[in-house]
Amino acid sequence: MSDADASPEVRAVFDDIRATRGTDFINNFWRALANDPALLAATWARLKLVMGPGELDPLVKEMLYIAVSVTNGCDYCITSHTAAARAKGMTAAQHGELLSVIAMASQTNALATALQVPVDPEFLPEGT
Amino acid sequence: MSDADASPEVRAVFDDIRATRGTDFINNFWRALANDPALLAATWARLKLVMGPGELDPLVKEMLYIAVSVTNGCDYCITSHTAAARAKGMTAAQHGELLSVIAMASQTNALATALQVPVDPEFLPEGT
Amino acid sequence: MSDADASPEVRAVFDDIRATRGTDFINNFWRALANDPALLAATWARLKLVMGPGELDPLVKEMLYIAVSVTNGCDYCITSHTAAARAKGMTAAQHGELLSVIAMASQTNALATALQVPVDPEFLPEGT
Amino acid sequence: MSDADASPEVRAVFDDIRATRGTDFINNFWRALANDPALLAATWARLKLVMGPGELDPLVKEMLYIAVSVTNGCDYCITSHTAAARAKGMTAAQHGELLSVIAMASQTNALATALQVPVDPEFLPEGT
Amino acid sequence: MSDADASPEVRAVFDDIRATRGTDFINNFWRALANDPALLAATWARLKLVMGPGELDPLVKEMLYIAVSVTNGCDYCITSHTAAARAKGMTAAQHGELLSVIAMASQTNALATALQVPVDPEFLPEGT
Amino acid sequence: MSDADASPEVRAVFDDIRATRGTDFINNFWRALANDPALLAATWARLKLVMGPGELDPLVKEMLYIAVSVTNGCDYCITSHTAAARAKGMTAAQHGELLSVIAMASQTNALATALQVPVDPEFLPEGT
Repeated sequence: MSDADASPEVRAVFDDIRATRGTDFINNFWRALANDPALLAATWARLKLVMGPGELDPLVKEMLYIAVSVTNGCDYCITSHTAAARAKGMTAAQHGELLSVIAMASQTNALATALQVPVDPEFLPEGT
Repeated sequence: MSDADASPEVRAVFDDIRATRGTDFINNFWRALANDPALLAATWARLKLVMGPGELDPLVKEMLYIAVSVTNGCDYCITSHTAAARAKGMTAAQHGELLSVIAMASQTNALATALQVPVDPEFLPEGT
Repeated sequence: MSDADASPEVRAVFDDIRATRGTDFINNFWRALANDPALLAATWARLKLVMGPGELDPLVKEMLYIAVSVTNGCDYCITSHTAAARAKGMTAAQHGELLSVIAMASQTNALATALQVPVDPEFLPEGT
Repeated sequence: MSDADASPEVRAVFDDIRATRGTDFINNFWRALANDPALLAATWARLKLVMGPGELDPLVKEMLYIAVSVTNGCDYCITSHTAAARAKGMTAAQHGELLSVIAMASQTNALATALQVPVDPEFLPEGT
Repeated sequence: MSDADASPEVRAVFDDIRATRGTDFINNFWRALANDPALLAATWARLKLVMGPGELDPLVKEMLYIAVSVTNGCDYCITSHTAAARAKGMTAAQHGELLSVIAMASQTNALATALQVPVDPEFLPEGT
Repeated sequence: MSDADASPEVRAVFDDIRATRGTDFINNFWRALANDPALLAATWARLKLVMGPGELDPLVKEMLYIAVSVTNGCDYCITSHTAAARAKGMTAAQHGELLSVIAMASQTNALATALQVPVDPEFLPEGT
């Protein structure tokens, strides 16, 4: 959805995205969601909160986003969050290590699942 | 595979796991893999390298492991790496934020995929 | 596979697709499957039965198809069944609500899996 | 988290779940989420809205939830939403048809992906 | 569903499973499906055909089944088809190599997806 | 990464890929990985070993790779390994049967998961 077609409700979300990010650019994800203004508003409100300042470093959050998106095979999400991670300072060496961890986890996930490995009692939280 | 049943090749890997981690405990994943000593040795050698010191913080690597494992639905991997992350200092607040990011990414992955959002040219690396 | 290249066996399936749907158009999925006439015939026969009149509304069936396809990340399937749902009367508001449910389920799936929530006995069928 | 351990913030969510559903029962999912009160509150608020009255029938929403959960392999979610669908009137025949559609979609998803079938231009929204 | 509760339609499928496999044992999958006799009959008829004699070796088919089931995280399917593969002669060494290939593919799938590697024109079938 | 940009470490891997495969062609996957020479070297070393001579037929290994890649929805991997399987002699009839098995497994995986079928004790290895 272009700015010209945006209803006031959509326009308000677009404006907040621009103000929060300090850029005039609205990426296609939000324009696609804008056909359902309520879904757009709810998704942006939650994303802004979750990806904002908190317990984890913003760059770590972007890397976690990439890890989930790669595992889900979401092309748009991988591309957009890899760009976001680079914008937040991810170096080529960090990207390489991120990929190594994702590849390692994908591999051991398959092995643990294939072998139906039973959970060690030592790993369960106390009182379970 | 119990220690008593371990061949010298398997025993050598078990010993290295114990030495690297500073504990006598060998978790079920490695015991299950031990039926194929070559696969056991290759997997441990790679894991030791990937999860060892590098560009990213060891706790961040555990969280990335959790993110991949949740998305793949690997119960064993979620439980063991959540225990490992706690052992490396993950607080309850950090765990909550980790879950929030994973949940957020799962949701927006679904939306981006459902809407078949085209990638913004702005996100592509230069020269693509 | 073009009509000109179709064997009599493939041609019979194409004819039944056309008759059932009341259109001359054969979409790429069936043309791609036609390289294996037995697989084409078996898949079409089952699809025709499953998606035909029954206990659930035809539009509901298309939405369920979309939900599975989004979760599997099948681009072709998402696009073709979204088009089919629109052809069966899905409104923009219904599409938005469908996306909201898929997004919600994706998110809580991740949380339930990440936390390894044990099933409440109250949810099991009696006699289990 | 038991009721006795619940903070006022958690207690308020538990109370709203009880009031909304008209039952004293709080299922394990919400108790597990309660370790992070903000995540609990945000998830419940959104779920209540999405699964509440709207464009789609409440039973249809539960079936869509099941379809996503099966595809994601989330055992807890399958079991709890199948129970919820039964409580909202899903018959055995409807359940059978739901399973047939999910199985059909899983199968054709795999075939379309394996064959890398190109999207038919006829399926794209006008103006794309 | 127990034999005693089986309708004549279900009973006929159970009898055919027994005759085809040369054993009196009916595993839980078929008993669970039996609540929907039409789905049971359609699934068994197709499975019998697909897994029967053909272009590929029966043991290879079981291994392919395991590969799909591991990637989907279907515990029941992994366990039952690993048992079936063993019954058809899969050795421990072959099982180890099967796991190695599945682990390798899981890892490179993640890398290719994470890097959004473009398909080489050399890999496309001629005439595409 | 082009040959001209390759460091000696990357060049050594490219040379080994060429020598092992008996072709001058380096596909995009390896060129994309080359931005992280250590990851490139580790992935190639493991792939060469796993896909090389062993307990399973090389063509069977390619088919298993396809089965995993289809289930993960990795477009690049499906296309490249389908090309590799064809180069190793996969016939159109074998491809059709491979697809039939993958489709069958995808379908029964969904059914077993949806019904939460309990594992039959008969399927567990002795001593479990």
